[in-house]
Amino acid sequence: MNLFSLIKQTDSCKARLGKITTSHGEIVTPAFMPDATRGAVQTLTTEELVATGTQAIVANTLHLYLKPGSELITQAGGLHRFMQWDKPILTDGGGFQIYSLIHTSNLKGKVTEQGMHFQSPLDGGMHLLTPEKSQEIQFALGSDIKLAFDDCVHPGVSPERNHESVEFTTLWSNRARKRFDELATDTDNPGLLLAIVQGGDDLDMRRKSFEGLAEIGFDGYCYGGWPLDSEGTFLEDLLGYTAELMPADKPKYAMGVGTPQDIVRSVALGYDLFDCVLPTRNARHGYFYTSGGVIRIKKKQFQNDFSPLDPECDCYTCRNHSRAYLRHLFNVNEAAGKTLATMHNVRFYARLMERIRESIENQTFDALKKEILALA
Amino acid sequence: MNLFSLIKQTDSCKARLGKITTSHGEIVTPAFMPDATRGAVQTLTTEELVATGTQAIVANTLHLYLKPGSELITQAGGLHRFMQWDKPILTDGGGFQIYSLIHTSNLKGKVTEQGMHFQSPLDGGMHLLTPEKSQEIQFALGSDIKLAFDDCVHPGVSPERNHESVEFTTLWSNRARKRFDELATDTDNPGLLLAIVQGGDDLDMRRKSFEGLAEIGFDGYCYGGWPLDSEGTFLEDLLGYTAELMPADKPKYAMGVGTPQDIVRSVALGYDLFDCVLPTRNARHGYFYTSGGVIRIKKKQFQNDFSPLDPECDCYTCRNHSRAYLRHLFNVNEAAGKTLATMHNVRFYARLMERIRESIENQTFDALKKEILALA
Repeated sequence: MNLFSLIKQTDSCKARLGKITTSHGEIVTPAFMPDATRGAVQTLTTEELVATGTQAIVANTLHLYLKPGSELITQAGGLHRFMQWDKPILTDGGGFQIYSLIHTSNLKGKVTEQGMHFQSPLDGGMHLLTPEKSQEIQFALGSDIKLAFDDCVHPGVSPERNHESVEFTTLWSNRARKRFDELATDTDNPGLLLAIVQGGDDLDMRRKSFEGLAEIGFDGYCYGGWPLDSEGTFLEDLLGYTAELMPADKPKYAMGVGTPQDIVRSVALGYDLFDCVLPTRNARHGYFYTSGGVIRIKKKQFQNDFSPLDPECDCYTCRNHSRAYLRHLFNVNEAAGKTLATMHNVRFYARLMERIRESIENQTFDALKKEILALA
Repeated sequence: MNLFSLIKQTDSCKARLGKITTSHGEIVTPAFMPDATRGAVQTLTTEELVATGTQAIVANTLHLYLKPGSELITQAGGLHRFMQWDKPILTDGGGFQIYSLIHTSNLKGKVTEQGMHFQSPLDGGMHLLTPEKSQEIQFALGSDIKLAFDDCVHPGVSPERNHESVEFTTLWSNRARKRFDELATDTDNPGLLLAIVQGGDDLDMRRKSFEGLAEIGFDGYCYGGWPLDSEGTFLEDLLGYTAELMPADKPKYAMGVGTPQDIVRSVALGYDLFDCVLPTRNARHGYFYTSGGVIRIKKKQFQNDFSPLDPECDCYTCRNHSRAYLRHLFNVNEAAGKTLATMHNVRFYARLMERIRESIENQTFDALKKEILALA
């Protein structure tokens, strides 16, 4: 059964309107999923998250496995019930998180055919995450969209490591598929299983990675690895090439994308799903996305500015508070400021996606893309 | 015009039901006012604060004067508009805050007849707060209940210092009264002006302090100075004596009180108004007030506890989330945990006051007092 259906395609580029069906409702795509890493979108209550118009969230398999543990969440009746969020949840495979932990901390880690060995950031103990274990955790969490465990590399990695990463990712995705299918027999709604295309910035390796995965067969495919080069430039050609490999009748997920500009670029390439820490992390640091571009609220110019953050926004923050008040809350390090900021940025992203979907519907996506690109 | 009216008195003690009228609505007393020190109740949006059933809040004259400055708040249309809270606001005089700053930090400070000289915690510069200036700031903020500037001392202070504190407080309250009356002529709704009774733990000095203030004449009186002795024991006799000095037809405010137990004790002594950092500060540290007593959420016993925090509570947190989920949020230091905790504790206090008012209405206050005292 195909849980994805294509609704409409733009005439001028690859942008498309689609729909993913899950047991917790539909996701109309293109859609952006904020990160609820540890079972909450940072600073927001579930009610506040719902109010942003967010359709789906990304929760973190590895972090929730380490704390509070997937058994506890199963006892709670699954992650939806634990956090009282009844819309779709996507869980990652865990590979990127371990990769990220190892590369951004002093924690030990090693990749073998078996899986990823890594030191826990919580107690320093060694753990092993395998493709099978990753599926078991994701089933325990009860997510609607599950990811196969991958061996993530950065673009620009050595050809040897890139080759190994593709080999392991194919091997692991095969084992993930098997374990998913086994576990699915005991579950009413196992949801979708997506696999992650690796290959760094080598087009042949991207193709090889995709072909290995396509042979196994998944409900959708993801662009894996960092979407930016070492200078922070969006790898548009690479993402475009990878999107083209993927079948048109399955969802395409651009992992970790990104800024509003990179999202419209990726939509134009045919991607349907997005996630990124930017709206939430930037909110907590006082960077706001607005219809006039990014605002840094701590700037002196906003001191006496009693206008709303973004006059075009319909979020609680913009309907009720002024830039001057938000600036004050950030200046005195008041936690409510971060909450109001996050509400706004998450709503900004949800509205951006609403506008993108409307523009595809109306064949006006090119104009919207131009408008968003001009904001940067 | 008396802005306070006495509705009902209990037969068995001094507990009483009353009503304070302000241009931002009524406060039915006894009432607890959470601290919105810097123009927000920490971690809560105004909408969340409204949902707790809170009738009025306390904002901090000194902190708001230092940041963002009272001029800015006047430009914003007053503190109500700045923070979008349209119910009553009480502002303190600033004396206690300076006293507290000097005693809990290395900041310099000096009390003279003129006022309080103190070093700003923000830039280290010296400031002078006078009784007149305190009124000017409170008028700029546009609060509904204003306090006269006082010279605060702890119980157990030397007789000399205690004597000086009472003298200064009387002198300053007189100047505050004058400045209030001057400023009131330009304002539609100047609100109430309350004065603070000092005198440490010396009953004669308490009487002397009150008499000095009563001669000037105020819309209500406050018990000032710390309500606990150096061992943390509630100074019931001292608060009782001071309450008896105050006229029955004016509101009586027990400043900084306190725990649910000390609140019911103070209500029994005839106090009408309360404020304290406890519900909000304890929330942020994972201490929850419940109908079964205080819960420390980080305790292991709550790990698998999927019941609500307090089954008798009607707050958003208790209606939606489990103890296990809250414990998890605190364990991973997730900001939403503090918000959910604060919502609950502030609602607990609001419900406590609702129950107190009901019990006075029904002449069942003694039974409620016994119940609350048994929780400690």
